[in-house]
Amino acid sequence: MIRSNLQNRPAGPTFASEYTPEQRNTGMTREERMKNSVTHVCKAIFPNTTNHYDTLFGGQALGWMDEVAFITAARFCRCDVVTVSMDRTDFKKPIPAGKIVEMIGRIVRIGRTSIQIEVDLFMEDMFSDKRESAIKGTFTMVAVDDNRRPKPITY
Amino acid sequence: MIRSNLQNRPAGPTFASEYTPEQRNTGMTREERMKNSVTHVCKAIFPNTTNHYDTLFGGQALGWMDEVAFITAARFCRCDVVTVSMDRTDFKKPIPAGKIVEMIGRIVRIGRTSIQIEVDLFMEDMFSDKRESAIKGTFTMVAVDDNRRPKPITY
Amino acid sequence: MIRSNLQNRPAGPTFASEYTPEQRNTGMTREERMKNSVTHVCKAIFPNTTNHYDTLFGGQALGWMDEVAFITAARFCRCDVVTVSMDRTDFKKPIPAGKIVEMIGRIVRIGRTSIQIEVDLFMEDMFSDKRESAIKGTFTMVAVDDNRRPKPITY
Amino acid sequence: MIRSNLQNRPAGPTFASEYTPEQRNTGMTREERMKNSVTHVCKAIFPNTTNHYDTLFGGQALGWMDEVAFITAARFCRCDVVTVSMDRTDFKKPIPAGKIVEMIGRIVRIGRTSIQIEVDLFMEDMFSDKRESAIKGTFTMVAVDDNRRPKPITY
Amino acid sequence: MIRSNLQNRPAGPTFASEYTPEQRNTGMTREERMKNSVTHVCKAIFPNTTNHYDTLFGGQALGWMDEVAFITAARFCRCDVVTVSMDRTDFKKPIPAGKIVEMIGRIVRIGRTSIQIEVDLFMEDMFSDKRESAIKGTFTMVAVDDNRRPKPITY
Amino acid sequence: MIRSNLQNRPAGPTFASEYTPEQRNTGMTREERMKNSVTHVCKAIFPNTTNHYDTLFGGQALGWMDEVAFITAARFCRCDVVTVSMDRTDFKKPIPAGKIVEMIGRIVRIGRTSIQIEVDLFMEDMFSDKRESAIKGTFTMVAVDDNRRPKPITY
Repeated sequence: MIRSNLQNRPAGPTFASEYTPEQRNTGMTREERMKNSVTHVCKAIFPNTTNHYDTLFGGQALGWMDEVAFITAARFCRCDVVTVSMDRTDFKKPIPAGKIVEMIGRIVRIGRTSIQIEVDLFMEDMFSDKRESAIKGTFTMVAVDDNRRPKPITY
Repeated sequence: MIRSNLQNRPAGPTFASEYTPEQRNTGMTREERMKNSVTHVCKAIFPNTTNHYDTLFGGQALGWMDEVAFITAARFCRCDVVTVSMDRTDFKKPIPAGKIVEMIGRIVRIGRTSIQIEVDLFMEDMFSDKRESAIKGTFTMVAVDDNRRPKPITY
Repeated sequence: MIRSNLQNRPAGPTFASEYTPEQRNTGMTREERMKNSVTHVCKAIFPNTTNHYDTLFGGQALGWMDEVAFITAARFCRCDVVTVSMDRTDFKKPIPAGKIVEMIGRIVRIGRTSIQIEVDLFMEDMFSDKRESAIKGTFTMVAVDDNRRPKPITY
Repeated sequence: MIRSNLQNRPAGPTFASEYTPEQRNTGMTREERMKNSVTHVCKAIFPNTTNHYDTLFGGQALGWMDEVAFITAARFCRCDVVTVSMDRTDFKKPIPAGKIVEMIGRIVRIGRTSIQIEVDLFMEDMFSDKRESAIKGTFTMVAVDDNRRPKPITY
Repeated sequence: MIRSNLQNRPAGPTFASEYTPEQRNTGMTREERMKNSVTHVCKAIFPNTTNHYDTLFGGQALGWMDEVAFITAARFCRCDVVTVSMDRTDFKKPIPAGKIVEMIGRIVRIGRTSIQIEVDLFMEDMFSDKRESAIKGTFTMVAVDDNRRPKPITY
Repeated sequence: MIRSNLQNRPAGPTFASEYTPEQRNTGMTREERMKNSVTHVCKAIFPNTTNHYDTLFGGQALGWMDEVAFITAARFCRCDVVTVSMDRTDFKKPIPAGKIVEMIGRIVRIGRTSIQIEVDLFMEDMFSDKRESAIKGTFTMVAVDDNRRPKPITY
């Protein structure tokens, strides 16, 4: 199957371990890395993500927020990371079809092998500048080596 | 648009408030309702739900678990319910493509207007009878009336 | 590409042929295997699976039912199985958005290399305990070896 | 919600009953209608529609074929149609990722209120002109009025 | 069907025409509106959006970019907008699975009833800080009133 | 993981370079190849592809059209092809839910290593024979060898 077609594979390393520390980190300080890893995702709420109340299905929101947390963590660590837990999450407001949603992921705690990411989900009016917080979640991710064993986060 | 075609609408009441208590509840005891609301969902892990590690994407699992919790709660309450929170959730193991997943939702606490549902996600081998717990989550749902205000759960 | 990253692959056998009979079958009788392979899948009907009549799209139901049949067969055989045919299937009732659907897959005939699975799809009210059969389908699956040639079903 | 925004609705009739026979049928003979309703759908097989064998998931094929049958029937009848049954269907060959699929729907029998559509699914090589039949299915559809009661097919 | 359940509808205006200019625009200058409408969307490239080369399917990228352009335009205009054209777009590089993508939408021209949005798509390494432009597209959107007729953009 | 299970892989060559010219081209003239590569795709517009106006989301249309262009080009070249650009594209009309869409892809120019494909998207009434052009797009694709370098198109 073409899927295992190594010749077609775009050039360049694809294992975290193939990268030197210099390649992985272009010399940013910890504060610069935290700032550069902030991740935004906007979505327009269309019928393919709503439930039978015509509001965003809660499980869909959780899925999007986990993807935001994953990208935020990968940008900070520049190595493989896996979700190990999601803290208690409140759904403050229903989000009707026709709204815009913006999620923002930020690193909030850095441990030896783990990292915490807070994801804020804002609901924004289509027809006015009104915007309010609707869901906030905190994810813990762990940096792993090529064998999926926890490894220190280096930056 | 056909979407607002009331004539085409299948017959029968569609608002919770249009049902009499007798229609909503066929006379089961609280224990029978709890037993009857247990909800199972099995999935085969195919590439359309995996991440670039070829394991189930965590956010996808959260989305499926919220749907299981919603169905479990709706079966118990027989009225509109909305998710208000998800408790801290641990992802114990990666779930590779080619596994079977079974989720089981159960009512674990019944309040005046709210209800707690525990969803266990088991990972099952395709080629052996081996099966183990991979994720466990607890959701809180609230019963709401036609105006989305909390209402007592009656059974 | 990370996709072919063997080091990242979760441990353990992944070919049916790598399993011993003892690993594949934990000593259940044929009747126990039949009982244990019964597979349930519940779904809430949301707009992303409905057609322009706001009822479940028939092709979507067929797709879900095939997945239920596949899991049922894999749980009984604990080897690779492929769908070879679907018997004549009647769509008895339209299934409007806002209903709950439960599919139940059961082994109904065991041949030398093939197996028949019946999948019942029930439509359930969201707001009452009413439940009725809406679609019933019978699938034939064949057990195949690592080269996709039919092989005897052993249990 | 914008969804029920009648003002935004593109102009023109949207109920079958709002059309005169002349609007519905531009004067084609029965044979011309049969020829004009032939419906083709081609797909490239990508990972989002394959199972863990990297072949097209059978249930996905059934879903696509039902959509082809629906379009074929709607083009012939120019009124609402619903699927009432699918005849026994054989899956002759696995369809690997990286193939092209072409489905062709044709009217094969016209009753008073029902119509039969045959859908052939061909698998085509990406890198050669080779092409072969992989699945063939026959669907029965019924013409329905605005209240979903069977109505005569007129052409 | 619950879909037309007006009572369940979250409170507040949902037609652009129901908003006063003051509600729609909180007093930002044109330059502030342009800055505030900049829209970011990040995605991790997983198998459900790749083709059989294990690279992002080009059509998927176009779909995402149109959603970014739509949100950017809606944030600037705070009224209904529809896409009327997409300028010539070059796909400079294949984007393999396992990369991160960031799209950035910016207003580049403001006409009387139309607006131009440029969407830059950057491909970012998962394991290093390397980042490069992969696709750039320019969309023209038109502001429309509740009857979908072009209307002046006011800010 | 089963994904890299070479034994399970359906028999036959899967690299373009493994095919002889005779296998790739069954002796059709250039005009016959152009005629045989014409590609049709029909879709019924359901809620899972519409935006909050209940019309087909423009980005979804672009995605479908790119897939049509890809299949048309692959059928003509019988080798790997990649999209390099899409010409300016106008969205002439909104396409409401409940319509049928037919896309037709045709080769319009053949260069040494590149090829141009025009894709016409027609909107068709469900309840009448009315049909009109809604979007037209032109894609440029390049034939590539197993290392993704441009290669001459031979026919």
